[in-house]
Amino acid sequence: MQEKSNGQFYAPKGKAQPVCAPGECSVGIIGLDHGHIYGMCNGLSESGAEIAMVYDRDPAKIAKFREAHPEAIPASSEDEILRDGSITLIASAIIPCERGPLGMRALKAGKHFFSDKPPFTAQAQVDEARRVVAETGKMYAVYYSERLHVEASVYAQRLIEDGAIGKVVHISGWGPHRISIDQRPAWFFDGANFGGIIVDLGCHQIEQILFYSGARDATISSSHTANYKFPKYPAFEDFGDAHLLMDNGASGYFSVNWLTPNGLGAWGDGRTFIQGTEGYIEMRKYIDIANDPEGDHVYLVNHNGEYHFKAAGTCGFPFFGKLVRDCVDNTRKAQDQELVFRAIELAIEAEEKAIRAGAR
Amino acid sequence: MQEKSNGQFYAPKGKAQPVCAPGECSVGIIGLDHGHIYGMCNGLSESGAEIAMVYDRDPAKIAKFREAHPEAIPASSEDEILRDGSITLIASAIIPCERGPLGMRALKAGKHFFSDKPPFTAQAQVDEARRVVAETGKMYAVYYSERLHVEASVYAQRLIEDGAIGKVVHISGWGPHRISIDQRPAWFFDGANFGGIIVDLGCHQIEQILFYSGARDATISSSHTANYKFPKYPAFEDFGDAHLLMDNGASGYFSVNWLTPNGLGAWGDGRTFIQGTEGYIEMRKYIDIANDPEGDHVYLVNHNGEYHFKAAGTCGFPFFGKLVRDCVDNTRKAQDQELVFRAIELAIEAEEKAIRAGAR
Repeated sequence: MQEKSNGQFYAPKGKAQPVCAPGECSVGIIGLDHGHIYGMCNGLSESGAEIAMVYDRDPAKIAKFREAHPEAIPASSEDEILRDGSITLIASAIIPCERGPLGMRALKAGKHFFSDKPPFTAQAQVDEARRVVAETGKMYAVYYSERLHVEASVYAQRLIEDGAIGKVVHISGWGPHRISIDQRPAWFFDGANFGGIIVDLGCHQIEQILFYSGARDATISSSHTANYKFPKYPAFEDFGDAHLLMDNGASGYFSVNWLTPNGLGAWGDGRTFIQGTEGYIEMRKYIDIANDPEGDHVYLVNHNGEYHFKAAGTCGFPFFGKLVRDCVDNTRKAQDQELVFRAIELAIEAEEKAIRAGAR
Repeated sequence: MQEKSNGQFYAPKGKAQPVCAPGECSVGIIGLDHGHIYGMCNGLSESGAEIAMVYDRDPAKIAKFREAHPEAIPASSEDEILRDGSITLIASAIIPCERGPLGMRALKAGKHFFSDKPPFTAQAQVDEARRVVAETGKMYAVYYSERLHVEASVYAQRLIEDGAIGKVVHISGWGPHRISIDQRPAWFFDGANFGGIIVDLGCHQIEQILFYSGARDATISSSHTANYKFPKYPAFEDFGDAHLLMDNGASGYFSVNWLTPNGLGAWGDGRTFIQGTEGYIEMRKYIDIANDPEGDHVYLVNHNGEYHFKAAGTCGFPFFGKLVRDCVDNTRKAQDQELVFRAIELAIEAEEKAIRAGAR
């Protein structure tokens, strides 16, 4: 189910479970800079949405996209999609620093917006988005894929909701990624384009820490960034971490990096440890090293024993069905808009206040 | 090899490999408050030292100790041991807050001192120890058992020294412990006796982070403590964590807790993740959950592949032989005295500056 060699084009597939009638939720795609758009479109179309139109500055990217989605009509401009009255939702994986501005144009054109993560790269973009969401009544949804598009993550959520580990008090996340340096575009190496590693990769982590701990907000106790291995790219960071205190008293930490070694059979050995008062959960999301090359492993230890669950194929990705229904019904069940904003705001703050680590 | 049910009396056994002649290194034991003394004595006697004398305030503890070490002559007072000219080394697992003062009496009596961790509970004790070590020329060694008395830890050290993961840039440690609340003495529940959870359990972690990263010092970026589960004991902490920046630019984090659930087949699922520029190591020290109830698992991922090593029985515990030779030869090869002091000083600092987490 998972494309193993490279995180860039990691696009999970699930079971088709349409939640709307054909044509009820038409999606326009604008901006194909990150391969996450393929996962976003998989999730949407499996839920019954129609990938109706597509635009990118680069015709080659459109052509490649249409190999996966021949149903998408190529548009000649962004505006052609924004002006199309049949389009309900705009989805985008444009270069991160352009997501906020594009999202504002989409919302003001009366569309909902579904952004790849990171959804913003600067605090001013979030401030504006809060204002425009309030003004337009439209939704700014975010593809925090490491929780929303990983069955292990959904499985863990259900265990927590079932009370398997008591009250969640601490979460520790690890988000290593393979750099695949030869396949990256130039914008990848300059933090100005994506906000730095804590914004780019850490926002996933913060969203998970807030969500699983049941918190509404957090403060950043400290954070570090470094470029340990790639001094050739001085505006790049290959490591970031942050220590968080949740508003409900839980503690959290994560580290992210671009240091996945070549010998790993997946793009990253992503882990999440969730400590409760009565037990803990470990997710081995994309691989169980030296044990199973497939992902979606959930380990649970509580007062009853030690358990290993293989989550693949068990619970799917309920986020996408909810997102499509939210578009059709004008409800807000898929995501908590304020949590979406706080996760990236905290990532931006952690990035800005990070102590610079690295060679001394 | 490991006593699995309870961390209190966890006393690893290795192969007997005497490094001195009988009687060359006689050890006096003073203070049996923590069961770690059994592991300390195992390591010393396997290396050829003689457990010659023993004293504790509590005759019952002496009697129990002599079941394991019938060769130890019971002394009628601490002074009887300190004045005995045949004794080279004093080893102690007295209540943590008394270790520093006892150590000073031992050093001033012309003995080396081997303290259970935490070796001190207040900065003033460390200041005095630095002064008295310099004045007496004696050694203040510390049983940082989670690195020194775990074969997985020794195995990992060798992998790093062999260059298996390149330059170490980040370390993340997890030290959960079973509370075994019914078996704990009263002093266990008042942080004044052991300095708080970061001092008590976190000093292990800081020592490992400094050691494996090859750093000489670190700063505490932030730290948290909490009592999430045991409000009945208001002077107790069941959780602590800290975020560190090493003097060589590496980043570190650890969390420790007393929340091991009953269903775990070991006293704690201790883990250490060591990230290098060319790969990473994960230690599963005391158990490999839902996979192997035995401990000493070392996982390595680097450019060549994913590896699982079972370290038990492979490399032993070289620390003890070195410590015994240090006593006999008056060398300092077992431990770096300054690193021993800095690890606990940083733990005391992290404890003191910790933000209080927990129920809001």
